[in-house]
Amino acid sequence: MKVEAIYHRARFNWSYAYDEQTVHIRLRTLKGDVTEVDALTGDKYAWEQTRKLVPMRIFASDGLFDYWQTEVRPPYRRLRYGFRLASGDEELWMTEVGFESEEPPHPLDLFDFPYVHAADLLKPPAWVKDAIFYQIFPERFANGDPSNDPEGVLPWGGKPTPTNFFGGDLEGVLQKLDYLSELGVTAIYFNPIFQATTNHKYDTADYFTVDRHFGDNETLKRLVDACHARGIKVMLDAVFNHCGRTFAPFLDALEKGEASRYADWFVVREWPLTVKEGVPTYETFAFEPIMPKLNTSNPEVQDYLLRAAEYWIREVGIDGWRLDVANEVDHRFWRRFRDVVKAANPDAYILGEIWHDSLPWLLGDQFDAVMNYPFTNATLDFFARGKTDAVSFANAISRQIASYPQQVNEAAFNLLDSHDTPRLLTVCGGDKRRMRLALLFLLTNPGVPCLYYGDEVGMSGGYDPDCRQCMIWDEREQDRELFAFVRELIALRRRHRALRDGTFRFVHAEGGQLAYERTADGAKFLIAVNNESEPATITIDLSGSTASGWKTAFGTGVSAAVGERLSVRLPAFGCAVLRSE
Amino acid sequence: MKVEAIYHRARFNWSYAYDEQTVHIRLRTLKGDVTEVDALTGDKYAWEQTRKLVPMRIFASDGLFDYWQTEVRPPYRRLRYGFRLASGDEELWMTEVGFESEEPPHPLDLFDFPYVHAADLLKPPAWVKDAIFYQIFPERFANGDPSNDPEGVLPWGGKPTPTNFFGGDLEGVLQKLDYLSELGVTAIYFNPIFQATTNHKYDTADYFTVDRHFGDNETLKRLVDACHARGIKVMLDAVFNHCGRTFAPFLDALEKGEASRYADWFVVREWPLTVKEGVPTYETFAFEPIMPKLNTSNPEVQDYLLRAAEYWIREVGIDGWRLDVANEVDHRFWRRFRDVVKAANPDAYILGEIWHDSLPWLLGDQFDAVMNYPFTNATLDFFARGKTDAVSFANAISRQIASYPQQVNEAAFNLLDSHDTPRLLTVCGGDKRRMRLALLFLLTNPGVPCLYYGDEVGMSGGYDPDCRQCMIWDEREQDRELFAFVRELIALRRRHRALRDGTFRFVHAEGGQLAYERTADGAKFLIAVNNESEPATITIDLSGSTASGWKTAFGTGVSAAVGERLSVRLPAFGCAVLRSE
Repeated sequence: MKVEAIYHRARFNWSYAYDEQTVHIRLRTLKGDVTEVDALTGDKYAWEQTRKLVPMRIFASDGLFDYWQTEVRPPYRRLRYGFRLASGDEELWMTEVGFESEEPPHPLDLFDFPYVHAADLLKPPAWVKDAIFYQIFPERFANGDPSNDPEGVLPWGGKPTPTNFFGGDLEGVLQKLDYLSELGVTAIYFNPIFQATTNHKYDTADYFTVDRHFGDNETLKRLVDACHARGIKVMLDAVFNHCGRTFAPFLDALEKGEASRYADWFVVREWPLTVKEGVPTYETFAFEPIMPKLNTSNPEVQDYLLRAAEYWIREVGIDGWRLDVANEVDHRFWRRFRDVVKAANPDAYILGEIWHDSLPWLLGDQFDAVMNYPFTNATLDFFARGKTDAVSFANAISRQIASYPQQVNEAAFNLLDSHDTPRLLTVCGGDKRRMRLALLFLLTNPGVPCLYYGDEVGMSGGYDPDCRQCMIWDEREQDRELFAFVRELIALRRRHRALRDGTFRFVHAEGGQLAYERTADGAKFLIAVNNESEPATITIDLSGSTASGWKTAFGTGVSAAVGERLSVRLPAFGCAVLRSE
Repeated sequence: MKVEAIYHRARFNWSYAYDEQTVHIRLRTLKGDVTEVDALTGDKYAWEQTRKLVPMRIFASDGLFDYWQTEVRPPYRRLRYGFRLASGDEELWMTEVGFESEEPPHPLDLFDFPYVHAADLLKPPAWVKDAIFYQIFPERFANGDPSNDPEGVLPWGGKPTPTNFFGGDLEGVLQKLDYLSELGVTAIYFNPIFQATTNHKYDTADYFTVDRHFGDNETLKRLVDACHARGIKVMLDAVFNHCGRTFAPFLDALEKGEASRYADWFVVREWPLTVKEGVPTYETFAFEPIMPKLNTSNPEVQDYLLRAAEYWIREVGIDGWRLDVANEVDHRFWRRFRDVVKAANPDAYILGEIWHDSLPWLLGDQFDAVMNYPFTNATLDFFARGKTDAVSFANAISRQIASYPQQVNEAAFNLLDSHDTPRLLTVCGGDKRRMRLALLFLLTNPGVPCLYYGDEVGMSGGYDPDCRQCMIWDEREQDRELFAFVRELIALRRRHRALRDGTFRFVHAEGGQLAYERTADGAKFLIAVNNESEPATITIDLSGSTASGWKTAFGTGVSAAVGERLSVRLPAFGCAVLRSE
């Protein structure tokens, strides 16, 4: 066995409490190298009485590795464990100190999961798994109240620039809730809505006031109440990494310099606050002078921001916070943030904006989830850009699954585009067949899907500001067929727990064809996709499976079972969601 | 290149802030497989202007892998990075999403170290690196005040049982401070000293009172003051995982059952509190009925324990806490603990008792260090038990070094025995030659050495209670030669920063012979060890080294430089500490 490819380290994504009773144990081996793995488990203080070999199974494979997992319930919450690996005649035992040819006689050198503590458990809110999110960029969704439009507002539907305004507001969203309900949306993620100077509002002037061009705090309260009345959750954008140039404490520091009582609220390299050769003398988001970085290690700053975090939960009843530039804020702040937010609402969803591997924030003390951009990139490379084949795609998704604890994957915020990226249709080069397949994958995948406003009616747009065009409300200009496709997929997902919270497994990947399986409560779905411009047939080996009587629940594919093989005939860029009970 | 053996994951021990300016980046490759590694680094928002290739060097190697490291100072505290690996004609670039044959054109897919935050930095107290610790089991060190002896106290020097008493106390320690200073000790770790029923005091009755058989709170204050007056720090044992059976809240819960106002202070499986078929109905340390586990997720329990943690720092001035059974207490509690302790004394040392890989506690938010038992085991297997050869030993130590951030290694609490293990001399089978070499390694190694009381005068003893014998004070029964050996080694370490805080590198490992190098401030030490019963010569290749003029600073070896080779002739179980400026 190739021991140099075998990896395990106690904790992190390798051994973790999934709930108050259950510990998941994982191991990585070289792909195809090891045929059998058992976890050797027991209680360190009662080894003889509790020692058990528990079979592990491959739950994911990528280009290089197989990933094994098993679940154990330690009787006294303490767990010592090692691994027994077998391949042909070869047997190897793995402990914390290395590899041995025989079973370790005592548990001293085994890996240690000392104690399952509820206090340390990462347990995202239960509702998240079932949600369908919809992202709204408020200035561009709907103008419900022209009386609050900014000066120089442009006619709805014009070309967005970094600085122009079209009058979208919260009243507009209120008036369009029927539309969202029709689509099947159950949660809204709003880009920032607090007082600020820009159209995107990422330059906060006042964390306690709704932007006057969007309405007022009372409008927001009405909106949240109306959403709740129809079962829609509301998540706001917490821009805590930096404030805006017009934030009162920053204005004070600008004016008074080091003497300002807010001098330490910012991260200042050199006084006075100015810009030298394009670089601000104070830290900012990127090098953007109007977004001064907040010094979140200052307790006053912490208290101010945490008051805001709590205020909107308690006063208005929001259901979650999306954390802007979350990885540039210190972990200590986010730990306090979690305590405050969960005390105000234990069911609040805490979602970090992090584009990279985010494990350090997902260990139970900080976030419930992150925006799953690695998922985005892999999905777009395969479906939208056609840059990778099904094998590479399945490898990338599997690697991603293996890199986080299971509950992290279950609450992952999956998106295909946002206000920070080109729109899905544009990435697809305008090809709606590709777009549909990407949406199918998004909506039949574990994690929480989020749609970017307007994608469902065929909106396109390149990088910011082009991806922030005004929502198309004229039905004659909307792609109603695409809308129906998305609505139907959402309904399918909402109808079947297996498609939301079921196990996930690739069963086929070759060329442009892909198939995967979702299972829960005895229901089994098989999703087959042909990401190519020629028709194709996917044949899936069902030996060992008890499923039968496959019926097409969605899509254009035609399936036929022959013996232990299921063939699915798919048109160009076709798909089929098959269901078996 | 064997990509399946290459490992890096952003953060943890692979990329971390070493201080407020510096990030360490590490990479693992298959041993001998890769000849050159560079880190590709830059600021994500100013990539073109900041992009830099920084050479990495192998800082440790074990049986399977080479570990590479480099240090970078990101100009704006943000760091994107990847790796360029070369071997012969082959070149490979590693990003977060995999391997590529060409340099990535933009930093999007690179690894991310988003921002260096002082608030998240693990920075153990500076004094720790320079300390020489001495562990005292108070009931057995010295009886300075017979008036506080327990009933039925036995004559000093008798055979310890799990339950008997010999009258050791704090006054005894006070009277022996000259002895400790003569040895060169600069810090004492005391086993528990608070009111309890047992001789080891791990069953706390009252966290605010010194055990009456050890003295009183005022005695402790006098002792700490006296220690401080001679530059000795004092660390106490915090037994917070569990209390003792006679702890008033537990007595209340025993008496009143579920109705007790302390019912939730414990982790109860089933009322009433009793023992059924050998297993308590409440959680305990191991299955020990007199050590009920404290429910540290109860805020009252937290407040009580944290008050105690703070009390002894503020009232008595202790310099650190050793945390008993630290890994069975929840992380949330330890985070609060760190906040409270560091607020009371930013220089307090927080040391966890964890016998296994401890990374989850050593990421900046919890402990400064752990008791380094993996070091203990590796050192004893080689020097004391002769179970492994020099190569295996060097591999085990190197693997350990690579598994933690550098500052963790620098503050690691290195020990060869304790009240929980057989004594060093006993593990050495009574062979003081082996014992000396183990002590030499301990005292010339990075991290903080801790000596267990009495080892230095030749005390032996098997597992608890035998390792807890009374200290030998009669000089005729002490091994004064061994004492002089230890004292001299301590003095050497204290005289030369290179031996405490210098870089560490193995330069030779073969059979029973080992050599390693320590360097700081231009001073270089070479330590050569012969762990065999025959004389041996170690030849070390000095090519590329500027060091010369080697002089023996300690030990019995004789060295001679011939060209670029240095030969060190060592007697059976001999050693030499050579020094070059």
